[in-house]
Amino acid sequence: MPLLVMKFGGTSVADLDRIKNAAAKVKREVERGYDVIVIVSAMSGKTNELVGWVEATSPLFDAREYDAVVASGENITAGLMALTLQEMDVPARSWQGWQVPINTTAAHSSARFVDIPRENINAKFAEGFKVAVVAGFQGVSPEGRVTTLGRGGSDTTAVAFAAAFKAERCDIYTDVDGIYTTDPRITTKARKLERIAFEEMLELASLGAKVLQTRSVELAMRYKVKLRVLSSFEDTDENSGTLVCDEDDIMESKVVSGVAFSREEAKITLFTIEDRPGVASAIFGPLADAGINVDMIVQNISEKDYDEAHPGAVTDMTFSCPINQVARAKKALEDAKTAGTIQYDELIIDEDVAKVSVVGIGMRSHAGVAAKMFSALSTENVNIKVISTSEIKISVLIDRKYMELAVQALHDAFELEKA
Amino acid sequence: MPLLVMKFGGTSVADLDRIKNAAAKVKREVERGYDVIVIVSAMSGKTNELVGWVEATSPLFDAREYDAVVASGENITAGLMALTLQEMDVPARSWQGWQVPINTTAAHSSARFVDIPRENINAKFAEGFKVAVVAGFQGVSPEGRVTTLGRGGSDTTAVAFAAAFKAERCDIYTDVDGIYTTDPRITTKARKLERIAFEEMLELASLGAKVLQTRSVELAMRYKVKLRVLSSFEDTDENSGTLVCDEDDIMESKVVSGVAFSREEAKITLFTIEDRPGVASAIFGPLADAGINVDMIVQNISEKDYDEAHPGAVTDMTFSCPINQVARAKKALEDAKTAGTIQYDELIIDEDVAKVSVVGIGMRSHAGVAAKMFSALSTENVNIKVISTSEIKISVLIDRKYMELAVQALHDAFELEKA
Repeated sequence: MPLLVMKFGGTSVADLDRIKNAAAKVKREVERGYDVIVIVSAMSGKTNELVGWVEATSPLFDAREYDAVVASGENITAGLMALTLQEMDVPARSWQGWQVPINTTAAHSSARFVDIPRENINAKFAEGFKVAVVAGFQGVSPEGRVTTLGRGGSDTTAVAFAAAFKAERCDIYTDVDGIYTTDPRITTKARKLERIAFEEMLELASLGAKVLQTRSVELAMRYKVKLRVLSSFEDTDENSGTLVCDEDDIMESKVVSGVAFSREEAKITLFTIEDRPGVASAIFGPLADAGINVDMIVQNISEKDYDEAHPGAVTDMTFSCPINQVARAKKALEDAKTAGTIQYDELIIDEDVAKVSVVGIGMRSHAGVAAKMFSALSTENVNIKVISTSEIKISVLIDRKYMELAVQALHDAFELEKA
Repeated sequence: MPLLVMKFGGTSVADLDRIKNAAAKVKREVERGYDVIVIVSAMSGKTNELVGWVEATSPLFDAREYDAVVASGENITAGLMALTLQEMDVPARSWQGWQVPINTTAAHSSARFVDIPRENINAKFAEGFKVAVVAGFQGVSPEGRVTTLGRGGSDTTAVAFAAAFKAERCDIYTDVDGIYTTDPRITTKARKLERIAFEEMLELASLGAKVLQTRSVELAMRYKVKLRVLSSFEDTDENSGTLVCDEDDIMESKVVSGVAFSREEAKITLFTIEDRPGVASAIFGPLADAGINVDMIVQNISEKDYDEAHPGAVTDMTFSCPINQVARAKKALEDAKTAGTIQYDELIIDEDVAKVSVVGIGMRSHAGVAAKMFSALSTENVNIKVISTSEIKISVLIDRKYMELAVQALHDAFELEKA
């Protein structure tokens, strides 16, 4: 029997009516001849309620107990979804993480999959059940404790099941109807993509397009799981949404597939640091220890060489990080200065920046993308503060107030509105 | 290490502050040198919310999925209680039913304990944990599905753990401060009992004193678990509340320990039925099949013997049942009449009755209790409709409007206000 994995996020199962709506989509696939594994999130708001209780109880909570409490939300949805399907005459059974079992590491609140044995669920399919409704976001540790995968983990659960059960496809039902060339709230020219390559989706996911969790895309890429993103709230068929797939499955790809952006960026510059081997690790070691997600890093030769106050060679170091980590980053750097492991004259923080990126696997074989991007921004008088590139992505840090303008200019320059 | 079981009901863990208050009581016992197994209910209101969702989804729900959904409430409290204890520097770990495991039958929503292996929890105690917080009301079936014990099941969980772990005592913390000679809302003379025998408590529990679930008392009696009922909302010490214990542990017991009552009764009389062997089973068989909890049964020789219309011997049959089962009982009897398995001339339903009972193990060795009871009621002009007796209980059915008067009169007659 061919098998599908279908995942419904929190807004797609927010109340009993929406669960019914989601169940109808599942039933349709069963009628098409599929066995279905449904992965469900907690009803939207539920996880926040549970997290709120845990944090109010114990600010520095024990992650084992956090997981035990928070995973309840998905268990409730799983049971309700199974009941809803039964009401529609679809034989369904719910599965909590330990029942499958979804074996994970013991890294509570950020557990990773170890393996997902197929025996128990397949035995139920063999008995005539058509649907296994699995609580997303959770698993069980080697010690038999409930684990969770971290926020957005239900996407990853879905992909892991699709890989383990060799599903024909993994459909992620969400509150948008696919992956767009950019956020339609920024430009009405934004166009839904029919297909996007895993690598592109990975860059888009990590750049702030919050449709899919990054880890789920990584996992899908590794196991070549065909991922489809589509809307819970529209009628959908086999051509709906956006297919995230291997680049070989994309016939003709454009040079640039999308423009991503992130408002939540900050730029931190250390002025006048020693220019010597080991200085970068002296700076970024303490930041890593403090859990700072350092993103773009730029090092410039400073003008200040041969300054009397600084007889050795000196330089400046600039990096970006999420804006809500700035205070922690500042403290880590100041502590390192106090401890004498790094020196700098001045620490400048710019919290008014945004990151804009163009992404496309076509860049690999096309020169001139960076030049076109910089020219488009320059035409709009957008000053570039930091540049960073990867094989399929060019990112710039700019003043936040120019962000929307920059996205629109780049969307136009690369003609993303055209299919 | 001596071990205590402490159980906190829904109102005792209704919010984070109350959980904190309950945890303080646990901590005090740990400081006294006990290992503690804490059994928790769902935060009050939670179970109703979950049940509401299940019933709205699927009126004739699959009990396996009902159990999976509804048991989540206790899991949440267990995790929050463990976190609260940790915050108070008490090493605590939460346990869901499958983790212990609490092995039950597969009778979903009314499962019974099969066994509770001690190994896993004892291993944690050996590691230095002082408290195991166990989700009440739930277990796991032989098929690895979540089961629940039915409403009030957390009391039963507590007693079962006390029996399995040979606890020194099982303390049931609730919203009343003990067992009273009768409901203090009926008479201010009601007095809290220091001790009460299991048998008496069983009669009181099944007669409508809703402090303890009947099954939990049965289990405590069978395994000689010392049960204590005491208040979550007061300062308590080792002498607080009421001890439910073996009658041998009660030095001098009164003839009557308490007066119980139930408003929710109805009386059903079948007039003119055949007086022949097998007629009772022809009547009560269909009632049992319809799930009617028939309580008191009285059969009278009818005046109508030798009536022309009824040439054989005839009689009347009266029984009582919970008022919310009257409609179902009526239908079962009418169906049986239609089917021809029973005959009767008339079916009279009286929904304006109440049951009042006096309970006491002292009755076994004292004559005249019934006489004293009937005399007290007669003095107040309360007419008795049905009488039923057991070894340690006398119950009467009376007009509901006399119920409070009857309870007060009996409380006075047996001088229950005196210790």
